[in-house]
Amino acid sequence: MTSPLHQHSAGPATGQHGLLNPAWAGTAAASMTSDAAVVAALLEVEATWGEVLAEAELAPAQSADALRELSRDMAAHPDPAVLAEAATGGGNPVIPLLAEVRRLLAERGATDAALHRGATSQDVLDTALMLVVRRVIDQVVTDLLRTGEVLSRTADAHRETLAVARSLTQPALPTVFGLRAAQWLAALSDAAENLHVAAGAAPLQWGGAVGTQAALVELAGSPARAEELTARLAEKLGLALPAMPWHTRRGPVLQAASAAAEALAALGTLASDVLTLQRPEIGELREPSAPGRGGSSAMPQKQNPVLSVLIRSAALAGPGHLATLHQAAGAAVDERPDGAWHAEWPALTELLRLSGGAAARAAELCEGLQVFPAAMRQNLDAAGPGVLGERLLARLGDAHPGGPAVLKALLAEAAREEVDLTVRLREELPAETISDGELTETLDPHRYLGRSAQLIDAARARFAELRAGLSP
Amino acid sequence: MTSPLHQHSAGPATGQHGLLNPAWAGTAAASMTSDAAVVAALLEVEATWGEVLAEAELAPAQSADALRELSRDMAAHPDPAVLAEAATGGGNPVIPLLAEVRRLLAERGATDAALHRGATSQDVLDTALMLVVRRVIDQVVTDLLRTGEVLSRTADAHRETLAVARSLTQPALPTVFGLRAAQWLAALSDAAENLHVAAGAAPLQWGGAVGTQAALVELAGSPARAEELTARLAEKLGLALPAMPWHTRRGPVLQAASAAAEALAALGTLASDVLTLQRPEIGELREPSAPGRGGSSAMPQKQNPVLSVLIRSAALAGPGHLATLHQAAGAAVDERPDGAWHAEWPALTELLRLSGGAAARAAELCEGLQVFPAAMRQNLDAAGPGVLGERLLARLGDAHPGGPAVLKALLAEAAREEVDLTVRLREELPAETISDGELTETLDPHRYLGRSAQLIDAARARFAELRAGLSP
Amino acid sequence: MTSPLHQHSAGPATGQHGLLNPAWAGTAAASMTSDAAVVAALLEVEATWGEVLAEAELAPAQSADALRELSRDMAAHPDPAVLAEAATGGGNPVIPLLAEVRRLLAERGATDAALHRGATSQDVLDTALMLVVRRVIDQVVTDLLRTGEVLSRTADAHRETLAVARSLTQPALPTVFGLRAAQWLAALSDAAENLHVAAGAAPLQWGGAVGTQAALVELAGSPARAEELTARLAEKLGLALPAMPWHTRRGPVLQAASAAAEALAALGTLASDVLTLQRPEIGELREPSAPGRGGSSAMPQKQNPVLSVLIRSAALAGPGHLATLHQAAGAAVDERPDGAWHAEWPALTELLRLSGGAAARAAELCEGLQVFPAAMRQNLDAAGPGVLGERLLARLGDAHPGGPAVLKALLAEAAREEVDLTVRLREELPAETISDGELTETLDPHRYLGRSAQLIDAARARFAELRAGLSP
Amino acid sequence: MTSPLHQHSAGPATGQHGLLNPAWAGTAAASMTSDAAVVAALLEVEATWGEVLAEAELAPAQSADALRELSRDMAAHPDPAVLAEAATGGGNPVIPLLAEVRRLLAERGATDAALHRGATSQDVLDTALMLVVRRVIDQVVTDLLRTGEVLSRTADAHRETLAVARSLTQPALPTVFGLRAAQWLAALSDAAENLHVAAGAAPLQWGGAVGTQAALVELAGSPARAEELTARLAEKLGLALPAMPWHTRRGPVLQAASAAAEALAALGTLASDVLTLQRPEIGELREPSAPGRGGSSAMPQKQNPVLSVLIRSAALAGPGHLATLHQAAGAAVDERPDGAWHAEWPALTELLRLSGGAAARAAELCEGLQVFPAAMRQNLDAAGPGVLGERLLARLGDAHPGGPAVLKALLAEAAREEVDLTVRLREELPAETISDGELTETLDPHRYLGRSAQLIDAARARFAELRAGLSP
Repeated sequence: MTSPLHQHSAGPATGQHGLLNPAWAGTAAASMTSDAAVVAALLEVEATWGEVLAEAELAPAQSADALRELSRDMAAHPDPAVLAEAATGGGNPVIPLLAEVRRLLAERGATDAALHRGATSQDVLDTALMLVVRRVIDQVVTDLLRTGEVLSRTADAHRETLAVARSLTQPALPTVFGLRAAQWLAALSDAAENLHVAAGAAPLQWGGAVGTQAALVELAGSPARAEELTARLAEKLGLALPAMPWHTRRGPVLQAASAAAEALAALGTLASDVLTLQRPEIGELREPSAPGRGGSSAMPQKQNPVLSVLIRSAALAGPGHLATLHQAAGAAVDERPDGAWHAEWPALTELLRLSGGAAARAAELCEGLQVFPAAMRQNLDAAGPGVLGERLLARLGDAHPGGPAVLKALLAEAAREEVDLTVRLREELPAETISDGELTETLDPHRYLGRSAQLIDAARARFAELRAGLSP
Repeated sequence: MTSPLHQHSAGPATGQHGLLNPAWAGTAAASMTSDAAVVAALLEVEATWGEVLAEAELAPAQSADALRELSRDMAAHPDPAVLAEAATGGGNPVIPLLAEVRRLLAERGATDAALHRGATSQDVLDTALMLVVRRVIDQVVTDLLRTGEVLSRTADAHRETLAVARSLTQPALPTVFGLRAAQWLAALSDAAENLHVAAGAAPLQWGGAVGTQAALVELAGSPARAEELTARLAEKLGLALPAMPWHTRRGPVLQAASAAAEALAALGTLASDVLTLQRPEIGELREPSAPGRGGSSAMPQKQNPVLSVLIRSAALAGPGHLATLHQAAGAAVDERPDGAWHAEWPALTELLRLSGGAAARAAELCEGLQVFPAAMRQNLDAAGPGVLGERLLARLGDAHPGGPAVLKALLAEAAREEVDLTVRLREELPAETISDGELTETLDPHRYLGRSAQLIDAARARFAELRAGLSP
Repeated sequence: MTSPLHQHSAGPATGQHGLLNPAWAGTAAASMTSDAAVVAALLEVEATWGEVLAEAELAPAQSADALRELSRDMAAHPDPAVLAEAATGGGNPVIPLLAEVRRLLAERGATDAALHRGATSQDVLDTALMLVVRRVIDQVVTDLLRTGEVLSRTADAHRETLAVARSLTQPALPTVFGLRAAQWLAALSDAAENLHVAAGAAPLQWGGAVGTQAALVELAGSPARAEELTARLAEKLGLALPAMPWHTRRGPVLQAASAAAEALAALGTLASDVLTLQRPEIGELREPSAPGRGGSSAMPQKQNPVLSVLIRSAALAGPGHLATLHQAAGAAVDERPDGAWHAEWPALTELLRLSGGAAARAAELCEGLQVFPAAMRQNLDAAGPGVLGERLLARLGDAHPGGPAVLKALLAEAAREEVDLTVRLREELPAETISDGELTETLDPHRYLGRSAQLIDAARARFAELRAGLSP
Repeated sequence: MTSPLHQHSAGPATGQHGLLNPAWAGTAAASMTSDAAVVAALLEVEATWGEVLAEAELAPAQSADALRELSRDMAAHPDPAVLAEAATGGGNPVIPLLAEVRRLLAERGATDAALHRGATSQDVLDTALMLVVRRVIDQVVTDLLRTGEVLSRTADAHRETLAVARSLTQPALPTVFGLRAAQWLAALSDAAENLHVAAGAAPLQWGGAVGTQAALVELAGSPARAEELTARLAEKLGLALPAMPWHTRRGPVLQAASAAAEALAALGTLASDVLTLQRPEIGELREPSAPGRGGSSAMPQKQNPVLSVLIRSAALAGPGHLATLHQAAGAAVDERPDGAWHAEWPALTELLRLSGGAAARAAELCEGLQVFPAAMRQNLDAAGPGVLGERLLARLGDAHPGGPAVLKALLAEAAREEVDLTVRLREELPAETISDGELTETLDPHRYLGRSAQLIDAARARFAELRAGLSP
């Protein structure tokens, strides 16, 4: 007989499948954080613990084996939709899951002697979510590295591609497009590194009902043995072993969430830049146009920068979730929190999905990004020689017959396109002050790029080192 | 042949069904905001528009009828999970939905001549979400009124139930439990009223590709006729008719979201109060204990205040979503936004779900709330006569031989339980200053309740009026 | 002898004067929310209450008069910096303020018999902040109306100024600049109306220590008399009279904050649009250039859009404060909150300052905004006839020899600038399908503006009505 | 003649001095982040750079010396209130500061040849804020270590002080108060470590107008020399040398902010716990009562837990600021951001102030915290033997004649105080199953503390190591 918890009847008619979340729908992060994936992670934690107990001869191998088998057979897992509804009774999904697992073990002729012994629901759910954290982060890091490789090449290829640098939206000085790409690269490198550290730090939670491991010590026979078993569980799950349970000390959640949010911020800047530079009046970049990407329901001629738009939407949504997690962390009272813990789950998983979705979209975006050096040059030229104003003042301010003040006024006039700066400079400055060649050189943007080449190298070298360190 | 968009194959193995959202899993708000419900609302908008066009003889009745029929046949709706994935191409779900609807109409032998004419995807999605907003809000208001009825009775029943009022967690003065309930009632009344106003204000969005209604004017033949058709659509959908499209002016979203967030805040205060007062050391209230509610995975004896915990978790999560919606509103640029719009959908729907879940849980909580007047009285008594310190000082400060300063010092001593205040007052105050009877009356908390009865009446009258106004 | 609380010694060496807040530094909102303004408002509340009591012969006129005199003599007010430090003892500034006022009254030979009777510190602070709310909002509304007048004229003046409408950053359809201005106008009108309603609803807080008005009833002699006095206080202060105290029911704070935040969102959209359109490659708008505005420390030629930048920075900061206020509202427990109330003060006042600063900057921005119709036309022309693709498809899709699909493909080719659309259309479409004149008309953007004129009128009419209603 | 920028006339009548910020008013963090402190830090950056240039013989020593002298003479610094107003012209305070410094240098007979050369205002302001970050964080770490020392002693002293552990507010199992203190200690240790890392990572910003260091390379003569000078500046300022400028890559801001926010969350949990446990009905803890702390304006007898209340208010406010910083980071576009940068300053400095205030209050709180072991024991006893239900079930579930189900039912009855658990167990269990002595041992909470002693040791050892590592 089928238990109500096991009827896969709910179907897609209920639930959310990302219809309103194109930022992450269809990405690996979406399936890694689906309800079914969470159920699988919960079962993995229980099964691994059963294994630890069985190996220590604290639980019968038969029960542990059946549990492991069940955890591996995803088709046999309880229906998340039904569990979800049942979870509202005790406030978390572990309680109905355990009831259902007991039923399934019995069906398979096994006892529950290896199930959940000495653990509390928060142990299992926190640990399962840390498994999910680690998996999603690994995927995000992979996508960031993939994007980084492209950006590293882009930065190198465009180390002499002149462009106008903009400050407060206005043309400021010459730069090269390679340096802009290098800044994106550096931001993604920072994000990937923080994510990697956070994934490595994701800890096991194993404290028992109130964080004393009392039941576990009873089961194991001694505190030292309890500690050993805990360490063994962490090892098997590939999670860090914390010095203490962290039921009300939510640093691990904040660390993962901060790293995800920082990645979103880095990707948000990249996407916002692409959105600006893809405006046809600027025309310096264009998203890859793939079949099915960028269509419009009303305008057939239009090609939308959909990838950037989706990344940007993800970046806008991230900070709210991070704030919720911080509020929850600061309200985690007593030995186990009274609502603050429950508020974490959707915020953390959505933040993971958003960073996963944005990273996947960014990889696609950067891999096909079209760069238009001619437009960059044209925008620089259109900004006029005023973009060398800083240099002119430094070089010629004191030498100018009227001094810096008059030269400044001339630059302002030129900015308003009232005069031709080069002509006027030549008229006003005697040849002994500056030769024709020197004036030409002074007004050559190629000669006023500062350390851009070195900075590109630095960003690329840093990324190369990071990638080498993170590769398996 | 079945289109890939129509294969209901994804099943519950993907997607989120509320496993990590016990605050709203299984409530009406969850199904009203499911992806399937959004698809249904999108189709309802398209079908109603087709009907308007057909009635105006601007589209063939055959196409409009087939569209309406399709919109009513939920079993025939495209699978949201498949649409979700396809939606990432153009950045929103309307684009693949239209493609699929065209296919389904063709299958039914109908043309698409009544479909989406003159509209843009944002028109359809914004309008559909406003339908969802209105439905969820109606449900929330219903649940708040249900809760309000209970609280109104509770406030009345406990208008003389003495309790200690607490300020900054510490006993302060006497109050009655009825007044506390009346404050909860007043907060829910405010919330219900704001929600009702927001639901009534939820507007149609119908601006065409860039908010000029250019295609619609072309189709209708004149601006005036276009306006009439727009008004007709709003009327049929039961939505407000806005003076202008609001593609980048997101007040309607903010109004609905603010009302939902305010309801969460009101419910958060209620739940936090119950959580405090249910602590066994205080023991003034207890959640209803229903089978399956409040269980623990590790501790058989424990009864958890699950409803309050879930409401509180919802209240913690609300503000982050509201902040996201405000950020998105302030970044809604050009004629149609470049990511800010997309960031709204999950934030708005989750805020609706949270308020819907919390309101449903609150109704269950308040309907079964157990009140313990004896514990309230005991906590008041334990606070000692110091809770009448304010009154004593006002009445006797000047009359006391040592003046207010000495009386204050005496009150502080009494608060530290170093002296018996009544005994000392009797000793220190001559009978001509205050008779025994007057002293007893002065120290009687029943006589120091201020306007509590009037305030309870005010809250109840206000609620009664509101309920009368909102009932159908 | 001078009390330490009265030494104006702290001076500008301490404190914040807006050095890092250029969004509001120097505006009226800054001085209306300064610590000194808050002290003045606190004293105004106390003095007005003293007056009410004296008029009711419940306190000596001499004390009330001295208090009123003190409240009016700003030079005699205690130093906020010293009060601030003392306020940490009891957790709020009212406690040390009262001590200091008592000292000052004594110095002036008056008793404190009219001071703070029956009130609690939260009554005085909440009420004072509502006075501040009302004042700042009045100023914001004034600035929004001022801006609205300009935008209304702009919308009218540019009702035929062709521009390209952009969707997801890309050229979409023709529009007129007047409609864009009308959308800004509509957003500011919505904001002004909500702010006005919020200011009118700002309530008195007068509940006594725990919201029962117990001390006040004692003082007044009866609940009815207490209610009368409360109503009299509200009337004198120009605040709404609430049905109940709202110590833990923070709707009034949320209503004011939501209105301020919504205004920031409206202004954020306006500023973001100006920032985009002022980019020289687009060049459709330019901020007013006033002496001292827009300078750069490094680049003499550069004119920065500083006003838009500051407005945008304010819009980015608003939602965080709103979220804090919602969190605080949902955590306002017991009869008086244990920290949630305290968290409100900086968030609310900063939100007021931000909206005040942004509104003042927006008025300056819009009053001097330079509009470049030629650039708008040029950008529209550069977008090519594809911006009429929607129209072409509707009109000619079926008539085209290849049907809609071939016409769509042609439009896409034209968008990639591979073909001349007009030439090709003329070649492919027989004259009997469309004459030369009809084709020219079809491709004339002036003929595809939909209801833009009517929508401009609607926004202007709505604003005119609002302004008439709000003017004194 | 005095410049308007130098008139210290504004006085305390304007500005904010913490009147509404008792969470941090009067603390070291407040003065470290005052406008005057920011001006001093800006001047320090300029003076140090002047020094670097002079040492490299790229600027005259006379100018550099005069600049250094000015930076050290705080009395001569420009008035922040006047600068604040002037700052709105260019959008940041560096521009008017430089104008004023030029005037002051001239007054002192020095040139400005060593001032701001090759730098941009964002370089100077970002760097100055990193100095402020480092200083405030150092202070916070000091206060956290001070608090940690107390908590470490408390944890040790109360390693056998029995208390009831609470889960979802309800009594769950026995614990010891020392473990609760150890959890607080662990949370503060985590926070202190993260803050220390963040302070060490706080980088110099030195990129010039658009992050290429073009002017600096020109001045220095070569990229390598420019890099050397940059490194020298970082070294002198005690800041980290970044690989690249970070004008639009705001990781450094996020790292400092995250650490501050995490500290606030840790302190928020501590304060919330104290607030609960100080409720007189629970009575396990009490805040130190110092003169002037905890007073009430209306109730003389009342002692408020003001320190906890203020810490909690700070914790509620933190996440909103963190969210703002993340939004700003994700919107930092082009080579220099158009408003996102400006939004950071108030959010970052307020977050620093909040963490500084909360850490200072927490030190005072913990140093004087009163612990009441008798109340803890009483609350544990009142919870009844049901708190050993988990143990009973594990030990006796199978041995009980009715099996685990009957034992569970008995525990539930006992939790409702319907039966005496010990008596019933003795009746129902034969002596051969469990002797009297064994039953007594089983029900002895001292024997069911799990690894609490080891966990206390772990937290203390970790803190000791941390403190040793962080001490100077």
